[in-house]
Amino acid sequence: MAADIDEQPAGYERLLSAEYADPIARVAAAIAERRPRHVVFTARGTSDHAALYAAYLAEIRLGLPAGLASPSAITLFGARPDFSDALVVGVSQSGGSPDLTEVLRVARDAGALTLAVTNAPDSPLAATAELSVDIAAGHERAVAATKTYTAELLALLMLVEGIRAGDGVLPDEERQALAALPELAARTLADPTPAQFAPRYRFAAQLVTTGRGYAYPTAREAALKLMETSYLPALAFSGADLLHGPLAMTDPDVPVLAVVGSGPGGRSMGEVLPRLGERRADVVVIGSADVEGASRLAVPEVDERYAPLLDILPLQRLALALARARGEDPDAPRGLKKVTATM
Amino acid sequence: MAADIDEQPAGYERLLSAEYADPIARVAAAIAERRPRHVVFTARGTSDHAALYAAYLAEIRLGLPAGLASPSAITLFGARPDFSDALVVGVSQSGGSPDLTEVLRVARDAGALTLAVTNAPDSPLAATAELSVDIAAGHERAVAATKTYTAELLALLMLVEGIRAGDGVLPDEERQALAALPELAARTLADPTPAQFAPRYRFAAQLVTTGRGYAYPTAREAALKLMETSYLPALAFSGADLLHGPLAMTDPDVPVLAVVGSGPGGRSMGEVLPRLGERRADVVVIGSADVEGASRLAVPEVDERYAPLLDILPLQRLALALARARGEDPDAPRGLKKVTATM
Repeated sequence: MAADIDEQPAGYERLLSAEYADPIARVAAAIAERRPRHVVFTARGTSDHAALYAAYLAEIRLGLPAGLASPSAITLFGARPDFSDALVVGVSQSGGSPDLTEVLRVARDAGALTLAVTNAPDSPLAATAELSVDIAAGHERAVAATKTYTAELLALLMLVEGIRAGDGVLPDEERQALAALPELAARTLADPTPAQFAPRYRFAAQLVTTGRGYAYPTAREAALKLMETSYLPALAFSGADLLHGPLAMTDPDVPVLAVVGSGPGGRSMGEVLPRLGERRADVVVIGSADVEGASRLAVPEVDERYAPLLDILPLQRLALALARARGEDPDAPRGLKKVTATM
Repeated sequence: MAADIDEQPAGYERLLSAEYADPIARVAAAIAERRPRHVVFTARGTSDHAALYAAYLAEIRLGLPAGLASPSAITLFGARPDFSDALVVGVSQSGGSPDLTEVLRVARDAGALTLAVTNAPDSPLAATAELSVDIAAGHERAVAATKTYTAELLALLMLVEGIRAGDGVLPDEERQALAALPELAARTLADPTPAQFAPRYRFAAQLVTTGRGYAYPTAREAALKLMETSYLPALAFSGADLLHGPLAMTDPDVPVLAVVGSGPGGRSMGEVLPRLGERRADVVVIGSADVEGASRLAVPEVDERYAPLLDILPLQRLALALARARGEDPDAPRGLKKVTATM
């Protein structure tokens, strides 16, 4: 897991190279030409969080309504939604989940434009979809996904910006912002702070993660990593949903990891953090925002649209360090397999 | 909260009476006539779980792609998705959330057919939407929503089946199945078992809820009730997602509430429950399925489509009894207000 985490800056660089960026640009141009009216994502686990990020991108950057489909409506209950105006995107590192493949098969039969985003270009998911994007993350050794998650994020970002451009070719400004990410990721990973936070949570019984907008998928993925590797029940809430009920649960014994960037999502956490303060919750802030009085895992400042590619890095390292501190083996989480087949 | 819970059978009866059913039928007919191509729900907290149920209904019963929108894409990041083919539905008991009202305003400006489903027909949400459904649950005294949740479920079910019928008029078979619900709900609430389960969780540090398909919203809502009233961190997973990671977290110290019906969703839990068994998790089954060897909160058998209207009842009563057993006041959860205003 440690090696997978460390490979992420190189993975960003690889995906941004012409060898992988050009095929993504061609897929983006093909999608732009077909003019889908809305986007449906289908994914599970970690990939579901990458899909959630892409759904925000599709709505904000493309003006396309976007949602996440429950495979079970199709695979268990026989739903056959009319997908004829839709772009249906399956996101899966292994490309081996039978339920996602079935959703893409049904969608393609119904006239949808279908796309597989996967680390396995020869997988059943990629073979079923009309279009396919290779996230090129290389073999992931650990069961807990890290570098395939961020490669999915970056591939989906490149794809959406390519669709926005129309011909798949990113504008210079976008290209420059993306080109800076490998170095920023390396700098983020060089920070020793995340491991120093592990003792803080050594005896925590549970944990809450929160964020809004682009930061919400990061909060969700951080919670999943902590559950998978440290068996720490971690509840993820959008900042707004937290105020709608679960806030009652927080008290000085419930540690909170708040992902707070420097844009509209981060600023909107300004209504959440004081409420957590009133409840005397133990808050650590992750991201580029400097929140007065809060402990912090600092991340270089970028537009919030790019922040998910950096903010998750210290959280992956925290999950790894905490698993070790709790005497667990993050490379062999109990009860889990790399590819999970569900229908 | 106890009184709110007990009023649910009468609430079902009221909503099914001509006084409220006829307006819902007219709204359904108006929607059917406009032939939306897909459905976007927007909601928060408990209402988000009702919206999730309705998304399953829309996909399975109407063949319409359906998803849940994140208000923040619109309210914080200025997204202006092209909603011109969409039915956009805001679900909110109070109808007072500024962010949901803003989503409906943007959607209506963009040419969407907009609908408010609320317990407050004079609310800003209802005033903003072109169409409005009154869930007629009466004043809810407790902060933790119970009778407004099930009223939202039933109103959305009546609406979807009315759209399916085309003219809003439910087929006889559907009408009869719905007419049986008040009596079945009363019988479910008469069962003293849920309160007897409270001591089991008196010292639980966390809890996992799970279900698939129509039962997944029930699992989510049960988790939220336990968090709101007993401050017990409760993690909800679809049965499939549980196998994709969080399963590692379950062990004999982690109680699991599994919602298992008698249809395709319940049968598919057959791949989840044995895996929980391998991990020696403490599983209690809620629903109509008789799972061998598992402790059980039995609920009368109905089609899985109707089961969410019954399965949540013993879980509400369990949340109430557990809050009392833990010395908390379920009528005044700390840190919460009835109407939560977020943007």
